[in-house]
Amino acid sequence: MLSIIPKSIDQQSSAAALSRQSRLTKPTGALGDLEDIAVTLAGHQGRECPRIENPEIFVFAADHGVAAQGVSAYPQSVTAQMVHNFLGGGAAVSVLATLHGARLTVVDMGVVGLQVPEHSAFLSRTCNTKGTRDFTRGPAMTHNELQHALAAGHECVILALSRGCDIFIAGEMGIGNTTAASAIACALLGKPAAELVGLGTGITNQTRLHKCAIVDKALLLHTQTFARPQNESIDPGVAPNQTSSHSPAQSAVAEPTDCGGFLHPEQALEALRCLGGYEIAAMTGAALACAQQGLTFLVDGFIVSVAALVAAVLQPGARDWMLFAHQSAEAGHNAVLDALDAHALLKLDMRLGEGSGAALALPILKAACALHGGMATFAQAGVDDRASGDSTA
Amino acid sequence: MLSIIPKSIDQQSSAAALSRQSRLTKPTGALGDLEDIAVTLAGHQGRECPRIENPEIFVFAADHGVAAQGVSAYPQSVTAQMVHNFLGGGAAVSVLATLHGARLTVVDMGVVGLQVPEHSAFLSRTCNTKGTRDFTRGPAMTHNELQHALAAGHECVILALSRGCDIFIAGEMGIGNTTAASAIACALLGKPAAELVGLGTGITNQTRLHKCAIVDKALLLHTQTFARPQNESIDPGVAPNQTSSHSPAQSAVAEPTDCGGFLHPEQALEALRCLGGYEIAAMTGAALACAQQGLTFLVDGFIVSVAALVAAVLQPGARDWMLFAHQSAEAGHNAVLDALDAHALLKLDMRLGEGSGAALALPILKAACALHGGMATFAQAGVDDRASGDSTA
Repeated sequence: MLSIIPKSIDQQSSAAALSRQSRLTKPTGALGDLEDIAVTLAGHQGRECPRIENPEIFVFAADHGVAAQGVSAYPQSVTAQMVHNFLGGGAAVSVLATLHGARLTVVDMGVVGLQVPEHSAFLSRTCNTKGTRDFTRGPAMTHNELQHALAAGHECVILALSRGCDIFIAGEMGIGNTTAASAIACALLGKPAAELVGLGTGITNQTRLHKCAIVDKALLLHTQTFARPQNESIDPGVAPNQTSSHSPAQSAVAEPTDCGGFLHPEQALEALRCLGGYEIAAMTGAALACAQQGLTFLVDGFIVSVAALVAAVLQPGARDWMLFAHQSAEAGHNAVLDALDAHALLKLDMRLGEGSGAALALPILKAACALHGGMATFAQAGVDDRASGDSTA
Repeated sequence: MLSIIPKSIDQQSSAAALSRQSRLTKPTGALGDLEDIAVTLAGHQGRECPRIENPEIFVFAADHGVAAQGVSAYPQSVTAQMVHNFLGGGAAVSVLATLHGARLTVVDMGVVGLQVPEHSAFLSRTCNTKGTRDFTRGPAMTHNELQHALAAGHECVILALSRGCDIFIAGEMGIGNTTAASAIACALLGKPAAELVGLGTGITNQTRLHKCAIVDKALLLHTQTFARPQNESIDPGVAPNQTSSHSPAQSAVAEPTDCGGFLHPEQALEALRCLGGYEIAAMTGAALACAQQGLTFLVDGFIVSVAALVAAVLQPGARDWMLFAHQSAEAGHNAVLDALDAHALLKLDMRLGEGSGAALALPILKAACALHGGMATFAQAGVDDRASGDSTA
């Protein structure tokens, strides 16, 4: 399923949208990031005036063996309890989904002790009912489990599309998953734990030092597995010639040793498998499927960004189908966004996950579309445009 | 009308809201700025769970004599044309008002050549049908005109409240008004034009240098008028002992010479009169009225922030009733926000005015209220809270 080929952006629609922006009754560029959003969505949707009418949020939940190492402020039982809270409407993402008219689906990727009665917003795609293995002792998941998780993410995108979805939000829940995401980011970016490990749900500085030691220990353990020489020939089933308009991710893949990380597609896949997170792998699968199907993937916070980074290493063209909603307060997010050549729309000091940052950004995207399609042009409104010579645009 | 006394914040409701936040099913502080918004609005509205259900936007429009100096990229005729565009639904703020369920009213404070037939969303409160006078030659407005403009802003707040408004947005339109706002900010903050004058609607760098020269010339001309010695006894009709919880504005007023600016209330009022903008004065009047009536004043971009700064100098307690929506791309906005001890929610590189940045932020405020009131508590959802010892909060 990784031999996907990202769909091409519709450059003609992007160009038409860009031209339209210059005729609307405002100084050129005065709507800032909203203009870029409208142009990007036009290219995604293949029409001059894009719309956001049917957003879907999939929250992927899973437990992590590494939680046994005491890396979180909360007990593992919270993962299953929060799944019930998502479905009951009491979690942050539940409230935001209702408020913004987004359909919410919760996907069990491997939550310990979870039992959910039949529920229309719940999917069971469990890779392992015990969660991932503790990656300080061995690979977090098997090759089969990794493929299962990637496929589940892919399946969710197809399901959303069958319901007319026009923007896909992936969220996550899993006690211990900032540890897993930090470890994957360290592996991909070639950085030590101290640079990327943050406070997660709000651990003490002392626990953070312990979390760093755990991540560094895992990186040491698994380096043999995913740090193969760059020229060793492996066919990961990924079409190798796809490129992206976003240079850092592209050049990182083209020249993986540049940033000191393990950015060959095969290595990234092994990093994902060894350092785990079934929910992280599912989101990587979803990001790849969005690119293949031509659906906008609205990236939430740190953990989703790590999944998106893995997808962009596997398929640089996948980056073109991503928009970035919120820059988290989590320490490593900035570095991951930089590697993706990404600038997040919002920065509200949030660090919750669940897809909450992306859900919060939905009205901004809707506003960008409404302004783009609904504002009058200078000609329509009979408003004088500037003298042609006096423009910085 | 300046002898207003700001209403006190309801500290009991703020405290109840803060306590509620700690019980919601999320790590403490994980909703970042949204938590602060909910607590602030609780204090404004006097209830543990605030709501935003009836926002109103008033766009104050006026022309500026200084436009004759060639400081804008657009001709003066655009002010009147845009008033028609606001009323016709084609302007950015019109689209956003419709999208976000905010009532929009356009107020003519002195637009050259404007003729609007009877319209339910239009108010005529013209100070001078020719707009302000060119402030490079004399004061922009008379004392009477200033009082008229301040009173018009006050009247709009009372009108909005009579319709059940729960958040007040002021926007502005006026070719040349970034020049006026920059000049007022320079006077209040004691800074030269080069530090605060920006590109406005998108002038060339050459025009910007000209704009700086115009502002510096005006500051020199009017310094004699508003730079009276600090200890000269003048009764501006402002209650002198009101304080604010926001230290910079407060200390600036308490010790006006600290930042080198003219921050005595009487001087600020004279700076507003001499450097003008009927729409800017109206927004100052509105900000003061919001504080008096206990209504949240959601501050838009650079020009509204300058009006808010004047209000906060006149009445430090007015600052407590303000929330800040968007940090503009306009050069001087940062300095004005700093002087107000303010951090804007959004930073989307916009520079349009009209109240568009504030209108765009409405869903963020609504989301903060919905999360605060709608999320389950740990007890309600049966979710384990963290161990009490392991918290950074």
